[in-house]
Amino acid sequence: MSAVVFHYHVAADAGDIDARAETLLLEQTVELPRAAATNAWVRQNIIGEVLSIEPHDDGGFLVAIAQPLRTTALAPAQFLNVAFGNSSLQPDVKLVEIEPPAALFETFKGPRFGADALRQKLGAQNRALTATALKPMGLPPDGLAALAHDFAVAGIDIIKDDHGLADHDFCRFEQRVELCQRAVERANAETGGRSIYAPNLIGSPSSVVRQFAFAREAGAGAVLLAPMLVGPALLHELASDAALPIIAHPAFGGWDWIAPDVLFGAIFKWFGADASIYPHLGGRFSYSRETCASLARRLTSSAHGLKPALPVPAGGIRTNRVREILSFYGSDTMLLVGGSLLETGDVVQRAKDFVAEVASVSRELAS
Amino acid sequence: MSAVVFHYHVAADAGDIDARAETLLLEQTVELPRAAATNAWVRQNIIGEVLSIEPHDDGGFLVAIAQPLRTTALAPAQFLNVAFGNSSLQPDVKLVEIEPPAALFETFKGPRFGADALRQKLGAQNRALTATALKPMGLPPDGLAALAHDFAVAGIDIIKDDHGLADHDFCRFEQRVELCQRAVERANAETGGRSIYAPNLIGSPSSVVRQFAFAREAGAGAVLLAPMLVGPALLHELASDAALPIIAHPAFGGWDWIAPDVLFGAIFKWFGADASIYPHLGGRFSYSRETCASLARRLTSSAHGLKPALPVPAGGIRTNRVREILSFYGSDTMLLVGGSLLETGDVVQRAKDFVAEVASVSRELAS
Repeated sequence: MSAVVFHYHVAADAGDIDARAETLLLEQTVELPRAAATNAWVRQNIIGEVLSIEPHDDGGFLVAIAQPLRTTALAPAQFLNVAFGNSSLQPDVKLVEIEPPAALFETFKGPRFGADALRQKLGAQNRALTATALKPMGLPPDGLAALAHDFAVAGIDIIKDDHGLADHDFCRFEQRVELCQRAVERANAETGGRSIYAPNLIGSPSSVVRQFAFAREAGAGAVLLAPMLVGPALLHELASDAALPIIAHPAFGGWDWIAPDVLFGAIFKWFGADASIYPHLGGRFSYSRETCASLARRLTSSAHGLKPALPVPAGGIRTNRVREILSFYGSDTMLLVGGSLLETGDVVQRAKDFVAEVASVSRELAS
Repeated sequence: MSAVVFHYHVAADAGDIDARAETLLLEQTVELPRAAATNAWVRQNIIGEVLSIEPHDDGGFLVAIAQPLRTTALAPAQFLNVAFGNSSLQPDVKLVEIEPPAALFETFKGPRFGADALRQKLGAQNRALTATALKPMGLPPDGLAALAHDFAVAGIDIIKDDHGLADHDFCRFEQRVELCQRAVERANAETGGRSIYAPNLIGSPSSVVRQFAFAREAGAGAVLLAPMLVGPALLHELASDAALPIIAHPAFGGWDWIAPDVLFGAIFKWFGADASIYPHLGGRFSYSRETCASLARRLTSSAHGLKPALPVPAGGIRTNRVREILSFYGSDTMLLVGGSLLETGDVVQRAKDFVAEVASVSRELAS
């Protein structure tokens, strides 16, 4: 049977690394010393293999471990368990890469809509897409709806809830979704545009499932979901419905345990994200150039027969960085600018300037 | 309205810490610079307050931030979002303590059974409890059931699935649960014991809900759940049913982001864990003495009107450490010994020795 190869960075001395790689291999599945795993079928079919151990340039070792695909039960939660369940609790190991076998994608079908379908919905080809967030938490539904209308009038492609907008008693999910969706529809009718409103789904799994159905019923064009907050397997479950494009948010995703390009660029995509938000370098967060490039490459790839997804660089990006960021990513991206559109003056005008700048830089890049 | 106080360790220079604390405060809720949050209600009712900034002995600063309870929507996923959503992506900040207001526990009701009810089910007072795991992954249901029978004959209190046992095609959840539960019931009938079998629930949220119902129907006395793998809000949702005691497993819990005593000792308990497994010091993992003591203290506490839960130290503990570990924790604990019972020789005898040693050391500690 096929195997998934997990690559870990392990901080260990040269004298200890062989033994450490062996315990890492066994920790993820049988959780027994090899000598205690006496069953022949288990030894042949469950226990994987340390494929390689290489010194890493910055110290420590890169350890490649093949685990039989069957150990993952071809299910998202168990896949993460075999990838980095117990070992995530250990300070000396990080998950830095995953090489999945083709058979994994019979179950992990990736984006059900993907970048192309989103572009079609939006009527936006050959340019970078624009996105913004409805905020701050605490505005009432009609206040957020007014803002949604402004952003849609300005022609922003995706107008999403801030990921902190929950089902608050001061701003109920249903009322917010109805008002914001109607506001965007009204603006679209006025301008002939096709802006999409994407409400944030958050709560217990059963609440999120209800919210998803409500958003669809209300006519929303996409939804926002933070898989690490609501459960990564719920992303897979919702995506399987293929009801609405899902934009993944990285909140509660942690730092320095699973490489962010693997978590937000590969795993989230495999589980079904049509677009994946992540902090671009130089904002309030600290990803490197290489991480950001790798995120975009993984998301836009059509490897494994998956539809390409949209990279959504974000995180305190100001409008004056549009040129720099699109030069880095090209047009195959959706640029999320949130707070800086709200800072001063005329929101509609600032949003229009953002949209125009993205269109203009996209044209330059294409020529 | 009441506030939750979150304490963070922030790596920053003295000259930057005031500004960093301000951005941390705002990142978790409004996600806007203060100047851009112009709405008066938002400023008064949503934006929290930096309560204190103190230099930390080991460098950096401890920052206490009060967030209005209403920002959490009194719901687990949003609570985690306000606690450590976006900021978990930042390398300079860790969540090290939470001071919840009483009002939080009108929603977060904690263990529905707790340590006392588990002890009553087991008929085990005034001594430490024993637990072990059915493993390795790859044994067929009847092989695991035979092992469950052995452990129950030996008188182990809680016989749980290894947390890697999923709904595998080589070991289906339903068949495993039926056979293991019957095996434990048969052993109990033979010995007059009251051992409990606790199957592992893992999968998409809807699968886990089905598995929970199946386990209850089959007569299992408890269940095992890894909240970080299946979604922490699902723990809260399942616990709300108050159908079966839930033993939380720390897999996929990460390292060095949320302090483990806060995550596994406080948050999991608040969300409804009746017992919480964590790696005791000196096994394959690396928690400090202080972390382990804090975990036990938080779990066994009846603060906030919650029922005490059971600390379950685990992680490569060998039977020859029973005395040392019970001397550390006292009898108010459940000691989980897995693999070392399976290593060589007669499983029943080794398990009996483990049970006898725990009983004997518990008696000594009581006298």
